[in-house]
Amino acid sequence: MDDNEKFMRMAINRAKEGVDKGQTPFAAVIVKNDEVIACEHNLVWENTDITAHGEIQAIRTACKKLNSIDLSGSVIYSTCEPCPMCFTAIHWARIDKIICGARIDDAASFGFNELSVSNEKMKTEGNSKVEIVSGFMCDENIELFKYWESKNNKKTY
Amino acid sequence: MDDNEKFMRMAINRAKEGVDKGQTPFAAVIVKNDEVIACEHNLVWENTDITAHGEIQAIRTACKKLNSIDLSGSVIYSTCEPCPMCFTAIHWARIDKIICGARIDDAASFGFNELSVSNEKMKTEGNSKVEIVSGFMCDENIELFKYWESKNNKKTY
Repeated sequence: MDDNEKFMRMAINRAKEGVDKGQTPFAAVIVKNDEVIACEHNLVWENTDITAHGEIQAIRTACKKLNSIDLSGSVIYSTCEPCPMCFTAIHWARIDKIICGARIDDAASFGFNELSVSNEKMKTEGNSKVEIVSGFMCDENIELFKYWESKNNKKTY
Repeated sequence: MDDNEKFMRMAINRAKEGVDKGQTPFAAVIVKNDEVIACEHNLVWENTDITAHGEIQAIRTACKKLNSIDLSGSVIYSTCEPCPMCFTAIHWARIDKIICGARIDDAASFGFNELSVSNEKMKTEGNSKVEIVSGFMCDENIELFKYWESKNNKKTY
């Protein structure tokens, strides 16, 4: 198993932990110099905070961990293509690379819709330098939505 | 002085308080049924959190205050056109209307640049229903940047 796979699987497992606690099936891991500096699942319901997407939570944790608002040299693994809020936060944080699993359209097909501006479009229009790898371990990431869908306590927003 | 002016002035004053404490010159106020439910300035430096823009902070406070992730029926007053992160957060929070002062381009001319995707473009491409009023009390909001620029402890990011 290569490192990318290892880190993405960590994000997938974290998302499952969130789902088990009634959260939505999203999580993100931030890695710098082969060290995991943040691993967070979505906390929108738990924190009553609409901004608490997995990526935002991971960025906030990473900033605290490194005591810096500059996360240059790091990579973010996200179970799903980041929404435009999270994409922009990733850009502001100067993260080098996004490796993501399911696409915004996959999320939409499970009821997580609205404001579907792709990362590629955000990158092009905003002239961002962040590197994007999409559809990584896509099937396993889509399975996450099915796992979430199987739960009785699921709530979308 | 009409209500919009009153609430925008509240945001401007809050931004000045932030600048006096070494923060960047941005703040936002959220109003629902004529009641101010959040009034926050940017806290990126103070919290070591690159996501702590004025609008994000105000949304988080408002969610807590109303104990809900749904801020339907509210208006956000922002001293500057929200960046795409904040615009998307406003959309997710189902805020009805954005009333903003300076434009992203004005912020850029004072050194706050990068990822300048306008709110109008985000709205159109994301098919968002949020109403946008731009350039409200624009001159006073641009003055905020000059106030910030006059400080010795100023830091952009």
